[in-house]
Amino acid sequence: MNPKDIPGTESCSSSVFVHNPHLEEMNDDILYHFGFGTRTHNLPAMFGDVKFVCVGGSPWRMKSFTEYIAAELRLEDPKAEYPNICAGTDRYAMYKVGPVLSVSHGMGIPSIAIMLHELIKLLHHACCTNVTIFRIGTSGGIGLEPGTVVVTKQSLDATFLPKFEQVILGKTVVRNTDLDPSLAEELLHCSKELDQFETMAGNTMCTLDFYEGQARLDGAFCSYSVKDKQEYLNRASEAGVCNIEMESSVFAAMCKLSGLRAAVVCVTLLDRLKGDQLNVSPEVLHSYQHRPQILVGHYIKKQLKKKALCS
Amino acid sequence: MNPKDIPGTESCSSSVFVHNPHLEEMNDDILYHFGFGTRTHNLPAMFGDVKFVCVGGSPWRMKSFTEYIAAELRLEDPKAEYPNICAGTDRYAMYKVGPVLSVSHGMGIPSIAIMLHELIKLLHHACCTNVTIFRIGTSGGIGLEPGTVVVTKQSLDATFLPKFEQVILGKTVVRNTDLDPSLAEELLHCSKELDQFETMAGNTMCTLDFYEGQARLDGAFCSYSVKDKQEYLNRASEAGVCNIEMESSVFAAMCKLSGLRAAVVCVTLLDRLKGDQLNVSPEVLHSYQHRPQILVGHYIKKQLKKKALCS
Repeated sequence: MNPKDIPGTESCSSSVFVHNPHLEEMNDDILYHFGFGTRTHNLPAMFGDVKFVCVGGSPWRMKSFTEYIAAELRLEDPKAEYPNICAGTDRYAMYKVGPVLSVSHGMGIPSIAIMLHELIKLLHHACCTNVTIFRIGTSGGIGLEPGTVVVTKQSLDATFLPKFEQVILGKTVVRNTDLDPSLAEELLHCSKELDQFETMAGNTMCTLDFYEGQARLDGAFCSYSVKDKQEYLNRASEAGVCNIEMESSVFAAMCKLSGLRAAVVCVTLLDRLKGDQLNVSPEVLHSYQHRPQILVGHYIKKQLKKKALCS
Repeated sequence: MNPKDIPGTESCSSSVFVHNPHLEEMNDDILYHFGFGTRTHNLPAMFGDVKFVCVGGSPWRMKSFTEYIAAELRLEDPKAEYPNICAGTDRYAMYKVGPVLSVSHGMGIPSIAIMLHELIKLLHHACCTNVTIFRIGTSGGIGLEPGTVVVTKQSLDATFLPKFEQVILGKTVVRNTDLDPSLAEELLHCSKELDQFETMAGNTMCTLDFYEGQARLDGAFCSYSVKDKQEYLNRASEAGVCNIEMESSVFAAMCKLSGLRAAVVCVTLLDRLKGDQLNVSPEVLHSYQHRPQILVGHYIKKQLKKKALCS
């Protein structure tokens, strides 16, 4: 059924903005990489109540976040099984508990960009309003104790500039990578309340490659010296870069364009000034990866409590 | 156990080239996104016999390829279960049957690049020789009947130039995207022998985005007209572009650097001159996606027969 045919949804005014006049002319919109379509799925019924979206690279981590947030919010039986809503495809995994949607995005800018195009259209078709979105991820730190959580102030490219370059019809268009400063501030405040691990605000460098693109010495190819690497990372540090990952710039740019309040919350798994290899034990890795979930979970819980008090 | 400690492997001379002097100084090499390490895994024993590697975006498709090739080569019971060798991580999936390794790479250049860095190191550590590698994928066609298989001649960027730009220490390095012309020729010959579906040689455009980056009209954002789109795709067609995907350029560049014979074999799922949405039925989609597998499977079978006759 087309959501346009569902009584009461004809005039829904979504606060999630698509900027595409061609969409209006389409009878059906197939969100191919999610395995949904506006004719085959009642998106307002499935997703209309979504207020928080959490995205991260790994499908397992996004499932575990859903189990965690369900228990935290006491919304559902924490022992319940949460099915992958995108079970018809293996490109992304998606889970939902109450107003919280959790979606995996794979690794790198192109992979998260495909997901965000379809997520933004999904939220728009579902007539969602007042949505806040978080990327909860992992990263390499610069000069930070491993396990430190970084809330991104600005996402910078590999030349330390706060911009994202999108190629459209073969031409480069520069997009702004600003994130919501008040949301970042609230997250830092949440971390103080929790008092469980170090959290800081800083710039995040977003690269197109994990090895040569992040000055690692342990890729299949490396044409630079230890000194070259150190100099590059020192320059990054001087530009305020606290951590390095591979998705924040396009995430910031696309969320800004679509009017979504957005934050990037990444834990650092190692200090890149001291090494390149990820050799922490699975237990330590697991506890580090859980930290952005705890922080964002605390924020969501507070917001829902506030809303319950006011209503 | 370190492969260097395994008798008989001290002097193995791999024909898969890493170009990184720093690797020699490492006591252990952790291939983080595969969940392997040279100290914890005996890579020569696990992978030393690999002669063919097939990579593709989707984990399911790579598993189904392994089942298909096992049956085709009559190497193992086709009803056997093939476990995911990378079961400790959900970043990539990997399967092996005899000399054929099958690995998923997710979507986009950064995702496949991480995988290839670790795959090239894996093949190097495992002392593999004479390895041929195939990307078997899906793509959008330009002016072709959906279901046509394209064997890539050259991988072009979004401005139709045959190059891949790798950012290293913040500076752009241009890499060659040549693929092996004799391997492409042999694959076209295989297709004639099979006579099951249309296969052609052509240029492949590799983009960093699926929506705006490929001139689609159905993304969350679109600032250009139907006419702008048509003009761009017509210019691509004039540059010899037969299909568009998101991984071939870095695949070609990295395979060339490491001395791997490489081919890109992608089926077209739609004709982009006629539309943007992927709305074929799951059955048709499945049969199209199987075509690159049939073609590459036939090639591998022939090579192994040839080898058996000569030995």
